[in-house]
Amino acid sequence: MLDSDPAFALHRGGKLEVRATVEVRDTDDLALAYTPGVARVCSAIADESALVNDYTWVSGVVAVVSDGTAVLGLGDIGPAAAMPVMEGKALLFKQFADVNAVPICLDCTDVDEIVETVVRLAPSFGGINLEDISAPRCFEIEDRLRARLDIPVFHDDQHGTAIVALAALLNAAKVVGRPIGEMRAVVAGAGASGVAVSRFLLTAGIGDIAVADSKGLLYEGREGMNPVKAALARDTNRAGYKGSIEEALAGADVFIGLSGSTVSEEAIASMGRDAIVFALSNPTPEVHPDVARRYARVVATGRSDFPNQINNVLAFPGVFRGAIDVRASDITENMKVAAAHALADVVGDLVSEDYVIPSPFDRRVAPAVAAAVAEQARKDGVARR
Amino acid sequence: MLDSDPAFALHRGGKLEVRATVEVRDTDDLALAYTPGVARVCSAIADESALVNDYTWVSGVVAVVSDGTAVLGLGDIGPAAAMPVMEGKALLFKQFADVNAVPICLDCTDVDEIVETVVRLAPSFGGINLEDISAPRCFEIEDRLRARLDIPVFHDDQHGTAIVALAALLNAAKVVGRPIGEMRAVVAGAGASGVAVSRFLLTAGIGDIAVADSKGLLYEGREGMNPVKAALARDTNRAGYKGSIEEALAGADVFIGLSGSTVSEEAIASMGRDAIVFALSNPTPEVHPDVARRYARVVATGRSDFPNQINNVLAFPGVFRGAIDVRASDITENMKVAAAHALADVVGDLVSEDYVIPSPFDRRVAPAVAAAVAEQARKDGVARR
Repeated sequence: MLDSDPAFALHRGGKLEVRATVEVRDTDDLALAYTPGVARVCSAIADESALVNDYTWVSGVVAVVSDGTAVLGLGDIGPAAAMPVMEGKALLFKQFADVNAVPICLDCTDVDEIVETVVRLAPSFGGINLEDISAPRCFEIEDRLRARLDIPVFHDDQHGTAIVALAALLNAAKVVGRPIGEMRAVVAGAGASGVAVSRFLLTAGIGDIAVADSKGLLYEGREGMNPVKAALARDTNRAGYKGSIEEALAGADVFIGLSGSTVSEEAIASMGRDAIVFALSNPTPEVHPDVARRYARVVATGRSDFPNQINNVLAFPGVFRGAIDVRASDITENMKVAAAHALADVVGDLVSEDYVIPSPFDRRVAPAVAAAVAEQARKDGVARR
Repeated sequence: MLDSDPAFALHRGGKLEVRATVEVRDTDDLALAYTPGVARVCSAIADESALVNDYTWVSGVVAVVSDGTAVLGLGDIGPAAAMPVMEGKALLFKQFADVNAVPICLDCTDVDEIVETVVRLAPSFGGINLEDISAPRCFEIEDRLRARLDIPVFHDDQHGTAIVALAALLNAAKVVGRPIGEMRAVVAGAGASGVAVSRFLLTAGIGDIAVADSKGLLYEGREGMNPVKAALARDTNRAGYKGSIEEALAGADVFIGLSGSTVSEEAIASMGRDAIVFALSNPTPEVHPDVARRYARVVATGRSDFPNQINNVLAFPGVFRGAIDVRASDITENMKVAAAHALADVVGDLVSEDYVIPSPFDRRVAPAVAAAVAEQARKDGVARR
């Protein structure tokens, strides 16, 4: 019955398999791939641990790790129900950048337990893609894992979104003919993606930025902020807005919605000339793109049925491909910025109101992002080959 | 330079990959395999958790888990150096029984930590194959995981070896024309495989059995035994031998070597008429098979270059295939016994001194073992479909 829905039919039996890349046809093959031949390979790695990267699949495998606490717009649905998303992510890793990825849904939500578990798993993987872990836990988990591990750790809900949003904004800035350093942005949402996008825009040199959560704009000294929001309040909102998001939107140049809430037509209408609106909540954008387009010069959403789809699949496959290719020990801020610029550059001279970001199916994307990430890893001294 | 050894050349880049079983060619595919379509599948699983077995790959994936403390004959070489073996195991799972398997090498050796880690990972897998974990820790880890999880947990070094050894012994008993209930066996080795083989022979009704560790035969009240050996001493050695393994071998019907040590030609010569010698240490059997054959009627080893190779690959792929096919919540003793009988029966009427166990490349093996295991799971009430 469920399978009358094509989404269920497609998911039946799952979306992944493990395949052997060598054949074991006879006793001789078995004696090389398994005992006794394999013992020589094990001994060599025991003597020189870096050989594990040459003689096992480890350095090319990414674990897609979630605890199922913040899955899509569905919230805390647990590890089993999160699995279709993690499998999907692994599928996209493979399809878009030929990265092997294994979905790992954890039956624990305590920060210490998640960190310890991933640290214990780490010898089996060349990278850790964190996914759909609720804020603010996700920030601490990522920070602690990056400190403890010498392989890339990347929370896609944060950094994947931030990379694609910045790429689109860089091109939108070309369309309106103003540098982002002169722009004032408003971000709706202070969860994983809202915080990461805001931080990333600061890194990229945005003029000013005001961030709102469900209680209104963040400002220094506001009551009831977690430490991550408090830190963000210190670094943003130089204009000093203290009210609702509408207050900050009046005259603003950029709106980025990552909230799951809505913004009124009036508020969008109150934005400045040549406004840029990225209404990224899925499946329902904060403002309908047709409505936004009446007032804004550039409109992007997370949806594939409107122009300018901001989709993380434009970032994470290429980012990990590049990091893996050079066996990076970390994914630095510079590498993320390089990824955003490479992604923006794929659009090139064809940039226009309705084309500020490439299609997810543009085959140039992952190689361009991977090359930029690998090059920056070398510059940053985190490449190991 | 290393790659001049064909084992290294074969292992370069690893032996596995993850593949997608569905294609994402365009926006419509993406909208089904990923957002927004995947959200409907997630919601359905959140409502009815058993659907995870139908709409993800989880129920068909086995984690091959090791801490690298007892790898082949190499000992405690750690998680990185253990990876080629775990990858090899995953490869054999796929090749011999089309079971998806993911190698997981853990960076921890504490029993509590391993148990907690595997419990946290368990939502991502349909079975746990423990591998190369040192004794006696392996016994407690397996026991606790079986108690905590509702998916099959199987320590291959124990039960895989025990199943194949029993299958070979059942056929050897046919060759010599005596039931195993009238036989007295001697097992060299009281590690994972020695303990498991001894326990399994008791389950199968062996007449008597004496087990030796590096200090000599186990008997009740012997000093310096861990709890697992003490329990085994209570259940074995009814003849009451208290000396060296040679004492018990005199007149014995069966010798099974799982020790990594050697047994003298004289000791083998002292065994009873129509003796059965399984010298299973790898790569060097406890006694050379050509030497053993001078005195014993049936000789088996772990080596592929002599007749009667006792190889775990005859058991674990089919055991998990059968358990997965019926979504078994456990692998019971009965299921293991059924696997041994099914494996022995593949040899059928062709049984002879040099053919007590099928070749690993006999294509009948895994389906026969899987069918027997699945059928027994239904009888034991652990099948869930």
